[in-house]
Amino acid sequence: MHEARLRAAVQAVSTRAAFSGFTGREPAGPTGADADAAFSAILNTPLDLAGNVGAITAQPDEVSPWTRLPLGVSYPRAGAAPLIERARGVLTGWSARTIGERAGVCLEMTERMFAANPVLGLAAMHTTGQGRGMGQSGSGTNALDRGLEAIATAWQMLSRVPANATWEQMFGTELISLQKSYRIVPMGPALVVACASFPAWNVYPAIFANLMAGNPVIVKPHPSSVLQMALAVKIMRETLLEAGCDADLVQLAVDSAADPITSVLATDPQVRVVDFTGSPRYGAWIEANARQARIYTETAGLNSVVLDSFADTSAAFGAIASAITLFSAQMCTAPQNIYVPESGVGTPHGVLTAEGVEQALVDAVEAILQSPRRAAAVLGTIQSDRTIQEISKLTEALSSRAQVLSTPRSWAAPNYPEARTSTPLIVRVGPEDAELFTHERFGPVVFLIRVPDARTALRRASEDAALHGAITAFLYSTNEDLIDDAEEAFAAAGASLTSNVTGAMPINFSAAFSDFHVSGLNPAGTATLTDESFIAGRFRIVQSRRPLHPSHD
Amino acid sequence: MHEARLRAAVQAVSTRAAFSGFTGREPAGPTGADADAAFSAILNTPLDLAGNVGAITAQPDEVSPWTRLPLGVSYPRAGAAPLIERARGVLTGWSARTIGERAGVCLEMTERMFAANPVLGLAAMHTTGQGRGMGQSGSGTNALDRGLEAIATAWQMLSRVPANATWEQMFGTELISLQKSYRIVPMGPALVVACASFPAWNVYPAIFANLMAGNPVIVKPHPSSVLQMALAVKIMRETLLEAGCDADLVQLAVDSAADPITSVLATDPQVRVVDFTGSPRYGAWIEANARQARIYTETAGLNSVVLDSFADTSAAFGAIASAITLFSAQMCTAPQNIYVPESGVGTPHGVLTAEGVEQALVDAVEAILQSPRRAAAVLGTIQSDRTIQEISKLTEALSSRAQVLSTPRSWAAPNYPEARTSTPLIVRVGPEDAELFTHERFGPVVFLIRVPDARTALRRASEDAALHGAITAFLYSTNEDLIDDAEEAFAAAGASLTSNVTGAMPINFSAAFSDFHVSGLNPAGTATLTDESFIAGRFRIVQSRRPLHPSHD
Repeated sequence: MHEARLRAAVQAVSTRAAFSGFTGREPAGPTGADADAAFSAILNTPLDLAGNVGAITAQPDEVSPWTRLPLGVSYPRAGAAPLIERARGVLTGWSARTIGERAGVCLEMTERMFAANPVLGLAAMHTTGQGRGMGQSGSGTNALDRGLEAIATAWQMLSRVPANATWEQMFGTELISLQKSYRIVPMGPALVVACASFPAWNVYPAIFANLMAGNPVIVKPHPSSVLQMALAVKIMRETLLEAGCDADLVQLAVDSAADPITSVLATDPQVRVVDFTGSPRYGAWIEANARQARIYTETAGLNSVVLDSFADTSAAFGAIASAITLFSAQMCTAPQNIYVPESGVGTPHGVLTAEGVEQALVDAVEAILQSPRRAAAVLGTIQSDRTIQEISKLTEALSSRAQVLSTPRSWAAPNYPEARTSTPLIVRVGPEDAELFTHERFGPVVFLIRVPDARTALRRASEDAALHGAITAFLYSTNEDLIDDAEEAFAAAGASLTSNVTGAMPINFSAAFSDFHVSGLNPAGTATLTDESFIAGRFRIVQSRRPLHPSHD
Repeated sequence: MHEARLRAAVQAVSTRAAFSGFTGREPAGPTGADADAAFSAILNTPLDLAGNVGAITAQPDEVSPWTRLPLGVSYPRAGAAPLIERARGVLTGWSARTIGERAGVCLEMTERMFAANPVLGLAAMHTTGQGRGMGQSGSGTNALDRGLEAIATAWQMLSRVPANATWEQMFGTELISLQKSYRIVPMGPALVVACASFPAWNVYPAIFANLMAGNPVIVKPHPSSVLQMALAVKIMRETLLEAGCDADLVQLAVDSAADPITSVLATDPQVRVVDFTGSPRYGAWIEANARQARIYTETAGLNSVVLDSFADTSAAFGAIASAITLFSAQMCTAPQNIYVPESGVGTPHGVLTAEGVEQALVDAVEAILQSPRRAAAVLGTIQSDRTIQEISKLTEALSSRAQVLSTPRSWAAPNYPEARTSTPLIVRVGPEDAELFTHERFGPVVFLIRVPDARTALRRASEDAALHGAITAFLYSTNEDLIDDAEEAFAAAGASLTSNVTGAMPINFSAAFSDFHVSGLNPAGTATLTDESFIAGRFRIVQSRRPLHPSHD
């Protein structure tokens, strides 16, 4: 079964056609109320991660954004030294495994994580604050698909290195015949640093890319968002043990805001690969200081929407409103800057004025908020108190200098009266307010930037992407020339472009196996899910050669 | 013809079997005395590089190590700003070319460079100081083969990225159908910094990897070794013009020791890729300062020979002596540290004592020096006066504290009475003298390190490789267990291992298409000729997507 799935995944990463290893299947583990019960049983207990080094005393900063109650789970707490020592200790055994054997173990991990997907999804829900559905899809099956994509890409790359070659060449009149061997040599211990709001999506591909390349992995989750990663690490360690491998190929490092460990781990001379998802400030610190490691980052960006003309006006507003509200814009693909042409936006029924565009967008967001059930599913909660505080400060600061079109307010989530929620801040600004919108405002903040026309919007949005970073961009236009130019401009800026998409798929959905995520061309990051550059730096090839026919005296 | 050659090269990089695009063919351009005449006509003239920016006034520091006469060639001299501006100006046009078109232009460049190989070889001879034969082989056909290998590897990687995909997936009950496009986006202007003694070997692969990825290239040769690179750039620019491309895709930057330009170029925010071959000190400076660029290095290493037992004693000494003397050890693969077991070395005729090993090696080197013609072909000259001075200082310093077994002396090269030559310094040291031999001594310096036994030799040599850098290592042993352990140890240290090789092939010969050169696992460098990591960082993929069936209101 694993081999068929691997073959299908390899085929998909080559064609970039639609594929999923997990959607449409039923998980083997507990679902529904059984999953709730299994999840509840984990809360307020010590969690043993199949012998992960460290006494189970770590109490990070985990409070559910839905219930506002501490999760109360304690984890193994170890310093950097024993974690790295254990990682080094298992390097040789694992790198002796064939690529196929490594792939088999990794695929089995994804299967077991999928079996536990409803429980892992609840852990995602009560750490990241995502809705229950998103915890099982975006943080579940989609993240597993990105992991499977990394396994397939790595398998393909590693399999291309021949194990042996026979080499024969004439030197003058003498035929030299050599037998050559090529070894995949792992870089060494790898550190995977996760963000608080969407850890699985980047952690799974990083772990699997490393394991395939031969590198033992230390997973360091954000102290406010540990549980899902801890449960995933537990499953991976159990899988390793059952496969006769050393569990310490995947370890968990737990810290707290008061007593952090990431910088020590990231700069240890023995740590040779670092995957980092988090703030641009800390990402830059790691790049400046973890000089001994190959670094893959995803930090932050300014995703823009350029409005020119609509083929289907209400569908377009619905699509944009969904992207703004999805998980309260705590996603790396959420749009922040929407450029509204002063000249208005073309529609099949005539030009819609700039004010009309603004109003329609505010209305489309309000429509989502009308149903508390839908709002809970779409917006989820706000992961961190700090995000609420920042938005509140910003709203106050803007009230005197800009036109606030929608003031953020909390809304009541069904069944979770204490949930930390917020509607988006929507504010009209001008290009002169660039210092407001040329850095990422994490969470539900939307700038409607008034520009003379769509061409100006395209120029500014693509320039900002190149300069300040962007993962993705959106365009609505019926003008083929503008679409062509936008494809050119955003490609050069390194932001993927989604044009004129409406309908049931969130426009900022990124599909594993098909959509390349993060280009590496702008400050938003260097970790492309999943192209070959995401794999290439994690291993090296070393050769040996000797005579094909041993000589004798 | 180009397509057949590309297919064959692609096949070779996949199997790593023997292949050459150039050896065994006759160059179309002038050979023999005609090549001499063509080369002489270039000396003491201004060299126009098909419109390379800059007035043709640059007089770098070029003096032939064979004649000791200045070459007298002047080159275009431009500052960093106009070079980078021109490189940026040609980026878009070139990146619009298909991968196949780029490959076609690059292959045509290699053909024309091969046609001019005898003249380019003379330029190599009178800048690097290599013998005439090596100028046409090592710096000629072999270097072109490493270039062709980079073209083939890049073509393969880039061709794997699909241009388009149709993507269809159900979201609830709605089928979402998207058309996706994937673009190869170049990183931007690339700088290729060459060393003085063997520029072609690293420059050609770097240029072609960059051109294939879409990056315009600025070639910055060492000021004492410009001419071969200038002639190569001239041919590449002419090829580009004839193909209807912009010549500024390949530019030459010329400076002098008194007025250097490399640091300014390497740290310019617009320069996004740097290939560097040169000293570890300057390489480290570039890595610390050129933070805006992806950097590929080849600096220096301690290549070791571990002696245990010989199957064919005299053949083994001949092979080691050749490797020590080949181009006077001014090659990155030359062995420097030879470990001699106190317990002696096994031979088919009994154990040879440590002193016997030392004497046999000194004798084998002397045998090469017996014929001035052979010495000239094998040892060539010493590229830089400074190397002579360093060896002389070292010899003096060692005379009081170590056993100098062979004192360096100059020898008379036929036809070139002024040639700057030196026999190797061969000195016996102990492990306690580690500070002497744990950094690269550039040029003909050989340490015979006395250790208790071969196991100690293996341990020390592999540890030094990991810690201080090594590209390659050599072992002579009839003990299969020791060979296995050496393969393991040097693989972990990132040094390629050649065991028990004797015969007409220099044991430190590295074959394009088959031998991976530089592992990236130790301080000797990160630029592996040519694996996929050598290509992967030079381009990025950006996608766009839109509905497959445009919607209408």
